Amino acid sequence: MDGVDYLADERSKAQFDVDELKIVWAGSRHAFEVSDRISRLVASDPAFRKDNRPMLGRKELFKNTLRKATYAWKRIIELCLNEEEASKLRFYVDEPAFTDLHWGMFVPAIKGQGTDEQQQKWLPLAYKMQIIGCYAQTELGHGSNVQGLETTATFDPQTDEFIIHSPTLTSSKWWPGGLGKISTHGVVYARLITDGQDHGVHGFIVQLRSLDDHSPLPGITVGDIGMKFGNGAYNTMDNGVLRFDHVRIPRNQMLMRVFQVTREGKVKQSNVPRQLVYGTMVFVRQTIVADASCAISRAVCIATRYSAIRRQFGSQNGGAETQVIDYKTQQNRLFPLLASAYAFRFVGEWLKWLYTDVTQRLQANDFSTLPEAHACTAGLKSLTTSATADAIEECRKLCGGHGYLCTSGLPELFAVYVPACTYEGDNIVLLLQVARFLMKTVSQLGSGKKPVGTTAYMGRAEHLLQCQSDVQRADDWLKPSAILEAFEARATRMSVACARNLSKFKNQEDGFLELQADLVEAAVAHCQLIVVSKFIEKLQQDIPGNGVKQVLGLLCNVYALHILHKHLGDFLSTGCITPKQGSLASELQRSLCSQVRPNAIALVDAFNYTDHYLGSVLGRSDGNVYPKLYEEAWKDPLNDTVVPDGYHEYIRPLLKQQLRTARL
Amino acid sequence: MDGVDYLADERSKAQFDVDELKIVWAGSRHAFEVSDRISRLVASDPAFRKDNRPMLGRKELFKNTLRKATYAWKRIIELCLNEEEASKLRFYVDEPAFTDLHWGMFVPAIKGQGTDEQQQKWLPLAYKMQIIGCYAQTELGHGSNVQGLETTATFDPQTDEFIIHSPTLTSSKWWPGGLGKISTHGVVYARLITDGQDHGVHGFIVQLRSLDDHSPLPGITVGDIGMKFGNGAYNTMDNGVLRFDHVRIPRNQMLMRVFQVTREGKVKQSNVPRQLVYGTMVFVRQTIVADASCAISRAVCIATRYSAIRRQFGSQNGGAETQVIDYKTQQNRLFPLLASAYAFRFVGEWLKWLYTDVTQRLQANDFSTLPEAHACTAGLKSLTTSATADAIEECRKLCGGHGYLCTSGLPELFAVYVPACTYEGDNIVLLLQVARFLMKTVSQLGSGKKPVGTTAYMGRAEHLLQCQSDVQRADDWLKPSAILEAFEARATRMSVACARNLSKFKNQEDGFLELQADLVEAAVAHCQLIVVSKFIEKLQQDIPGNGVKQVLGLLCNVYALHILHKHLGDFLSTGCITPKQGSLASELQRSLCSQVRPNAIALVDAFNYTDHYLGSVLGRSDGNVYPKLYEEAWKDPLNDTVVPDGYHEYIRPLLKQQLRTARL
Repeated sequence: MDGVDYLADERSKAQFDVDELKIVWAGSRHAFEVSDRISRLVASDPAFRKDNRPMLGRKELFKNTLRKATYAWKRIIELCLNEEEASKLRFYVDEPAFTDLHWGMFVPAIKGQGTDEQQQKWLPLAYKMQIIGCYAQTELGHGSNVQGLETTATFDPQTDEFIIHSPTLTSSKWWPGGLGKISTHGVVYARLITDGQDHGVHGFIVQLRSLDDHSPLPGITVGDIGMKFGNGAYNTMDNGVLRFDHVRIPRNQMLMRVFQVTREGKVKQSNVPRQLVYGTMVFVRQTIVADASCAISRAVCIATRYSAIRRQFGSQNGGAETQVIDYKTQQNRLFPLLASAYAFRFVGEWLKWLYTDVTQRLQANDFSTLPEAHACTAGLKSLTTSATADAIEECRKLCGGHGYLCTSGLPELFAVYVPACTYEGDNIVLLLQVARFLMKTVSQLGSGKKPVGTTAYMGRAEHLLQCQSDVQRADDWLKPSAILEAFEARATRMSVACARNLSKFKNQEDGFLELQADLVEAAVAHCQLIVVSKFIEKLQQDIPGNGVKQVLGLLCNVYALHILHKHLGDFLSTGCITPKQGSLASELQRSLCSQVRPNAIALVDAFNYTDHYLGSVLGRSDGNVYPKLYEEAWKDPLNDTVVPDGYHEYIRPLLKQQLRTARL
Repeated sequence: MDGVDYLADERSKAQFDVDELKIVWAGSRHAFEVSDRISRLVASDPAFRKDNRPMLGRKELFKNTLRKATYAWKRIIELCLNEEEASKLRFYVDEPAFTDLHWGMFVPAIKGQGTDEQQQKWLPLAYKMQIIGCYAQTELGHGSNVQGLETTATFDPQTDEFIIHSPTLTSSKWWPGGLGKISTHGVVYARLITDGQDHGVHGFIVQLRSLDDHSPLPGITVGDIGMKFGNGAYNTMDNGVLRFDHVRIPRNQMLMRVFQVTREGKVKQSNVPRQLVYGTMVFVRQTIVADASCAISRAVCIATRYSAIRRQFGSQNGGAETQVIDYKTQQNRLFPLLASAYAFRFVGEWLKWLYTDVTQRLQANDFSTLPEAHACTAGLKSLTTSATADAIEECRKLCGGHGYLCTSGLPELFAVYVPACTYEGDNIVLLLQVARFLMKTVSQLGSGKKPVGTTAYMGRAEHLLQCQSDVQRADDWLKPSAILEAFEARATRMSVACARNLSKFKNQEDGFLELQADLVEAAVAHCQLIVVSKFIEKLQQDIPGNGVKQVLGLLCNVYALHILHKHLGDFLSTGCITPKQGSLASELQRSLCSQVRPNAIALVDAFNYTDHYLGSVLGRSDGNVYPKLYEEAWKDPLNDTVVPDGYHEYIRPLLKQQLRTARL
């Protein structure tokens, strides 16, 4: 029945103030207020309806996205939304569109890499969306290895122009979002060639389509690269293919903030530090970690609520069956994911701080923390996106068969989320970068150069290499110091072991290639330590609200012990803990899950997601699952008629044994 | 270029006779010949084209499936295919359809649960497809707990009929494939009520639709439950919802082979043993394990071939970049999955034998091995389907960004495969059944009752509980005996530890609920041991062909060491191996991966899949990936026009700042 809250009982069990936790989750009272207001605005506007997406064909789906994106922009103008509110609105519209790349990549690229003059020329056009831009880097044959891009930008001193060209099939731009059908302009990455010399890859602003009739400009071949994973998912986006046949652009459309080409075709470095580029990468990856916490929390919210509604087995004397959330197997799979959502939220919050810190230092020409900040964001991007992708699918499985229905919201959430494991740095490639940084850190340990930031713990390597956990009873694992030391010792020992094995190779690079698998594991151990330690640091702050700090402390432990159990082999083989201590951790985890149980629904309510944003019948806030599932089913196009299209042509001849004459 | 084999170099590197391995993979020369012939037949027939599926809307997609299913049946008749060939043909058509349930569930249900008389009446109709049947068990509110089904079948002695009724919303049948729009009949599971007494759940043949005009019969509400995960995937299937409003069927449509209702409404057990039902479950789950090896091998074939084509980084002096298959991280993720494909193939082959063995015993009234066979098939179904679902997604990630395109074949393969983790027994529920059986086995160890079959090793519990691995050098892990003992010791110790912890509970059931997570892990350890030991047994057979046995031995080791590394925590915490031995295993694994490398392409060629069946541009047999990706892109409906539908309504007003007057 509408209006009834089937989860009211569950909500009343909570042992903390859920409204206060909502503030903590949002990051601040202000952030909560904006999110809350904008998400309701979107949810209440039928123009932003999204439940019909899985049923639409590609063209219809795409057209619908264009409408929404333009309508969203119109609303942003009408309501005079500021940048924060506008970006929240796009977030809650929850549909990948060309505008994501325009605002998220095109504008920042010009801001970061364009000269003041270039910014003055292009940004006002972009801000008003008089031009729509994309970010054309990846090519058909070149992804992770940006330095291997093949597109060329050859300077022609005669006309003061660059000639942009795609010399091979594999040099075709491939993947850029918004490129396929919409962008009028792109920041195109190409090899700069002057005077026959290759100066590596740089960015160029290239107009792609006519501003009059939207047709591609001469020499430009552009289109959509085709369907991607999922029904709706990223198929609302026109990821594109782009080829240049000697397309000419004025010299001043090369982004020249750092590297410049003069009228004469001479190249020179400006006095702006190159490291600024890394600052941008820290920024982008920091937002990806924040997105991970959104995606995982959404999946967990759906699975948790449905687990409280779904009942199976355990009926005694004709009573109701057991809620599946009461089964230990369900808790043991679900609650660590719930804890991960909070863990990723807090580490994302910290990364935001880190970005501010790095930016301030860069402005003061202090590059000392940049490598560490870069490694740490790369690693956390990798760790959180991989874990989130897995978690969404695990949540889908936790919903049993019904999780497989699009109305559960989980298939689409998975399909739309997984590219995060690949874009902005393939997750394995990123971990190898982290490992490289860790090896460097280890090699400098004896040199007196102190490791900084998230690697500071390695300064205590001597202790960490030989310490023994003093956990004796299960409850000892509740102590943050016990957790921290075990994680620090594990990370240190894995890194040091890798470094030792590397040193056995004559050629370090050969060693690095041969030991990749171990290096990746060491990097993961380091990144997991960061997540755990930032969660612990968060808990050392003042957190108001009745029971809020306690329940977060509980989740922090659940997260840490989950990782400890999952990677028990690491902890045991490095001798950081004993088998007995490992089994005490499992024992404690069981009891912690029981403590999470009464708080589970309130903990996902604290995300403050509207039913529109969640987009899931199983995750409905009121728990009214079955009637709504039943209702939704009838909306499928197949149910438009009782007898399906195709019956007369195919099924009737089959049943009537008249196949010989049937046209098949 | 067409006609060029870009993988020829790779193929020439193989150190074994690939044609002989094809026979081993197929199971026999005969099986190979049938598979080869039928798969080519399907591939060469344009009527079975499937590359356009992701672009079709639901109705079009479904209608297309009806055409294919009927056409396939027509070809089966025209070509006089026997049962084996017909089933292979349906397999290679590779599109879920109502026929799967008709042949795979409806017909077997009548065969297994119908009396001779019932079989004589219904089977001829079903064999000719004059009726089309589905298997209507699962309900909206009831999945795993079959005994909790709510649909009722109340005997009316006055008319000698059953009244089939859906008393609640949650009693609606939900999920049965083929039910939504096609089936004329269903085997419907309902609570048998006679004389006010509930006799539990039984099967009934119920006609659902008119054989004249296909309209639902009076009292029947039936439809499709809506879109599911993926673009094409299972959306070709009409999974259905079904409600009964006091629908009457004659008494002789209850399936009465085991349990009977007399004319007077008295119930009685026939003299046919109930255990027959378990025989059917062993059969169905055995086929699911075989399917797992098909799905995982398909994904691995795509990822392996593409990994040999894709190059990234490592270019020196302007030469070609490194093939990604040469990176250790790629090998370390990919080759264990390749090994898993073979491991699952051989354990599936053995399960087929087990089913024959069980059937023969059942016919001789020997039920002694049934519980063990049942537990073992349940466990292997769970293990192989979970691992396969994960493997497909891992293979997709191993293909980088391009794996996200539908043309890679991997998104659809994942979406169509994952339900296997849920249907025919949720994988976690099944592992708990295995654990229950293991606990029983452990409890009887002292009783003189010897554990049989796959649990026979527990007969040596005394030794296994205290033995120490004697591995001293990495190569010692090559000995099957070293692997087997470690796996047996681990499984035994985990089961025994669970049993000990259980015994601390006053109430065994409470203990079982509390320790579920540990029990699941013990069950997994047992099942992994089965897979490893059956692989080893396979290698003890005569395997002809140059180098074939050697390369399979290599894969067996890769599989075992992969599991050992993944679950290192188990092996170390139970003291079965030392940290040093664990690290020797990793060292050996690195060298084994290098040995797999030259054989990788030939090892996936041995699956003998046609490009049609693979359905992947990335996995093309000739390796001609990039030109074909480029070609396929242009087929997307969005590329029908240069300027997309929606430009004039939404994009032009945006660019021209004319939003105020735009209709959005």
